[in-house]
Amino acid sequence: MKTDKDLDAAGTPTNFKVRGFDLEAGEYTVILNRQDALTLGLRSLDRVRVSRGEVNLIAIVELTDSVVEGGEIGILKGGRTILGVSDKDEIRLVPVTRPRSIEIIKKRLDNIVLTTEEINILTEEITNHRLSDVELSAFVTSTYMHPLTSREVKDLTIAMVENGEIIDLEVEPIFDFHSVGGVPGNKVTLLVVPIVAAAGLYIPKTCSRAISSAGGTADILETVANVTIPGWKIKEITESVGGTIAWGGGVNIAPADDIIIRVEYPLSIDPYSQVIASVLAKKKAVGADHLLMDIPTGPHTKVKTLELARSYARDFMDIGEQIGIHVQCAITFGGQPVGRNIGPALECREAIQILEGNPPSSSAVEKATSLAGILLEMSGYSGDGKEKADELLRDGSALKKFREIIEAQGTEFTDISSEDVPMGKYTAEVLSTRRGYVSSINNKTMVRIARAAGCPHDKLGGIVLEKKNGHQVDKGDVLFRIFSSNEKKLKLAVATAQKLSPFQIEGMVIEMVPGEKVIHTIQ
Amino acid sequence: MKTDKDLDAAGTPTNFKVRGFDLEAGEYTVILNRQDALTLGLRSLDRVRVSRGEVNLIAIVELTDSVVEGGEIGILKGGRTILGVSDKDEIRLVPVTRPRSIEIIKKRLDNIVLTTEEINILTEEITNHRLSDVELSAFVTSTYMHPLTSREVKDLTIAMVENGEIIDLEVEPIFDFHSVGGVPGNKVTLLVVPIVAAAGLYIPKTCSRAISSAGGTADILETVANVTIPGWKIKEITESVGGTIAWGGGVNIAPADDIIIRVEYPLSIDPYSQVIASVLAKKKAVGADHLLMDIPTGPHTKVKTLELARSYARDFMDIGEQIGIHVQCAITFGGQPVGRNIGPALECREAIQILEGNPPSSSAVEKATSLAGILLEMSGYSGDGKEKADELLRDGSALKKFREIIEAQGTEFTDISSEDVPMGKYTAEVLSTRRGYVSSINNKTMVRIARAAGCPHDKLGGIVLEKKNGHQVDKGDVLFRIFSSNEKKLKLAVATAQKLSPFQIEGMVIEMVPGEKVIHTIQ
Repeated sequence: MKTDKDLDAAGTPTNFKVRGFDLEAGEYTVILNRQDALTLGLRSLDRVRVSRGEVNLIAIVELTDSVVEGGEIGILKGGRTILGVSDKDEIRLVPVTRPRSIEIIKKRLDNIVLTTEEINILTEEITNHRLSDVELSAFVTSTYMHPLTSREVKDLTIAMVENGEIIDLEVEPIFDFHSVGGVPGNKVTLLVVPIVAAAGLYIPKTCSRAISSAGGTADILETVANVTIPGWKIKEITESVGGTIAWGGGVNIAPADDIIIRVEYPLSIDPYSQVIASVLAKKKAVGADHLLMDIPTGPHTKVKTLELARSYARDFMDIGEQIGIHVQCAITFGGQPVGRNIGPALECREAIQILEGNPPSSSAVEKATSLAGILLEMSGYSGDGKEKADELLRDGSALKKFREIIEAQGTEFTDISSEDVPMGKYTAEVLSTRRGYVSSINNKTMVRIARAAGCPHDKLGGIVLEKKNGHQVDKGDVLFRIFSSNEKKLKLAVATAQKLSPFQIEGMVIEMVPGEKVIHTIQ
Repeated sequence: MKTDKDLDAAGTPTNFKVRGFDLEAGEYTVILNRQDALTLGLRSLDRVRVSRGEVNLIAIVELTDSVVEGGEIGILKGGRTILGVSDKDEIRLVPVTRPRSIEIIKKRLDNIVLTTEEINILTEEITNHRLSDVELSAFVTSTYMHPLTSREVKDLTIAMVENGEIIDLEVEPIFDFHSVGGVPGNKVTLLVVPIVAAAGLYIPKTCSRAISSAGGTADILETVANVTIPGWKIKEITESVGGTIAWGGGVNIAPADDIIIRVEYPLSIDPYSQVIASVLAKKKAVGADHLLMDIPTGPHTKVKTLELARSYARDFMDIGEQIGIHVQCAITFGGQPVGRNIGPALECREAIQILEGNPPSSSAVEKATSLAGILLEMSGYSGDGKEKADELLRDGSALKKFREIIEAQGTEFTDISSEDVPMGKYTAEVLSTRRGYVSSINNKTMVRIARAAGCPHDKLGGIVLEKKNGHQVDKGDVLFRIFSSNEKKLKLAVATAQKLSPFQIEGMVIEMVPGEKVIHTIQ
């Protein structure tokens, strides 16, 4: 790799005998005996270049006193595959300088704004797995404590796009849609995409699985359709059918972003500037030139205040414009779950019910048609976009397009109806212990209950809300139902609901009816 | 461990079959199949408690698609030892909540001052290897970007002491000495300790190996003596002989500090507040109640400005006082190497020459006796401390004490003389190409040349300076000699010297005589 210099002090490369470790994690790690490391002047977390013939690999050094002997080098499975070596093979090792990114990250730590060139180097080295967790974490921490400037975010976005797969559609213009997330039950992507595709727009939508939620869009659609589609097929489907709803993990767009997110996860941080670069890079990589952002805002969501929502909106629009994406932002109500259902299969069922013209609640329909309407107007539609979206839903065009999309994505059973979507075998009802009005529903608590019931892994688990904000309730009314495939998990979910009381009724926290009594099996 | 709660959502523990991996690094890591992790709701870097009978271990999860199958758990060597399990044994696994430190570190990221209790939890979890590299790096980065307050440093110091071995001497008062480092050739510890011990002071000095220097005090003394001594023996030797010069890595004092330093190393950062806590914790753990700090200051050292040196001095004294250590600070001249010799054996030789009364230069003697003098005055000596130190050096008391110390540390050949210290077999001379006065010598470049010659691993490598600042030189005069045990490394060191030109003569950078010509072997 051109970015590395063999260290002067290291002299000629040293030969080592391979000792294989069947560990996949850490293909960029090699293990040396502590004495050998001392001889070579290497410390834990230093870099070496290991090579056999023309093939070489830059790896991070870990040390051992015993399991790798002097003259041996421990190489994990991925590394052996890359080098094409087996046990007892000889390979060459030479210490190399640290990646240039370390000095670049240190500049950030000193609050120095990075140049475009520095951001390119950093992104390239992140993409090529040149940085250790320690270094990645320092970068992520620095962007949290001292956000990147708008120009740096722009540069990072472009660099992440260029260091990954690009889906080059031969149609235009390309539309896209993204929700910042944080509000449960937000199945609107399953409605927005078929509505606007039915109107003739091209929308190669990629989506994610749940990280901390009860279900990501990929988890939801996967309960009835295939969502793992390679890049060339996303292109083909979008060009022929108009849209996709594909799992982003199935394509290699902006891989640096995934590497950064892995490190953000244990710290539970979502640095502001990283969120913007992350979203825009994934959109730019599929060639979007028009993007609608949904920014749910409310006390128990990711974006807690209108002020923060407006700041995100400004930056998405500003940086979008700089990289050639026209962005519009909808700040949406994130004060309670969207629609009635939470959890992969339950949300899918609700989306199909809406497509079939039998919505169980109005909020998900309202939100989806409003957003689809904005996209239609962004495309130049001169009438009322929302009315047009409503019409495409009413006349069955959106349902038809939904079926075309999932068929093109390789789903067998495409004439699916909402009745066909499976539901968890075990269920419990949570009742109100008093009379009053629902004054709030805590999003985060709802997600915890759904996850206790098994979401997102248990695709059939989740929650169906019977009451929402402003509804009148009597003592004994069902507030919500919990579903699960597993009786034990259902009990845990009920216990979680009892402990955390997600509903506030007239400003008082209600008590839950003990769950055991109301657990029964659906026939 | 009382700090962890089993996750509600996890249900009952799951049984897994052990699959051993002979990897020592990462004893706090377990490897699960990605499908099992999905079922358990676990992601990479999440925590689990694995247990067999009453024994349990909190570990960090890594995922694999292939090398660990469903129902299996990969456990590295250290983990298997702790749990007492072998291949195919069944163990229980249950996901646990994240360590409390993560929320504490997030507070730091949000610039919130930590409470004493929070710092105790953080230090305890660092000591117990509960934090991953990602989390440790976030903490270290935060202390770099937003230094700890004086109260937080005090709390961290005490917490690090209490979470480690404490050496409890039965004599008093206890003196100690520490140099912040950064200036090459600083072998004064080998002089200060025997001088003050000869005067009857107790000084249980622990020291370190080189990280980025040409040789730490442990590396230097190790060329003629044993330096790896357990805590009980440091106590015994100090009580009987008066002093030790022991490698800090041989005792388990303030282990959290070593864990933090491991993470600072790849980032090449030395956060201000961490430096203070690190030094004071190691001193408090050996029971020091009087500490003299040497703060070398100059453009090519760690502490670059007088302003920064004074700030360190104030904080060392202030925080020292708070934890019961009376600290005095000497801001010393760090503008060029101390004495003539750089490199483990060469520095040891120079120190012994000084003890023998034949100093090759005055600067090391001056510095050592000044510092020893301050310690003597701190102990209540009513005369001129420096004069007393000079006397103890002149009359052979210091040399006698030095021999007593190394004998007590378990060294065989204790009547060592400077003549006996080995030197590198290969040597080269670097000549001046012009006439003038030496106006500066770059410390960092000198260290790079010494390291190119093989230091600190090659204990016999290094540099002997023939000229120092202010000296007059003629064209062709020898500026310095390079030593190495390896001819190739010597050539590399000469090439480094030619490239980097460490000497400035009358403000001009000199050119080096090509090294090849002057390389010859000492008989």
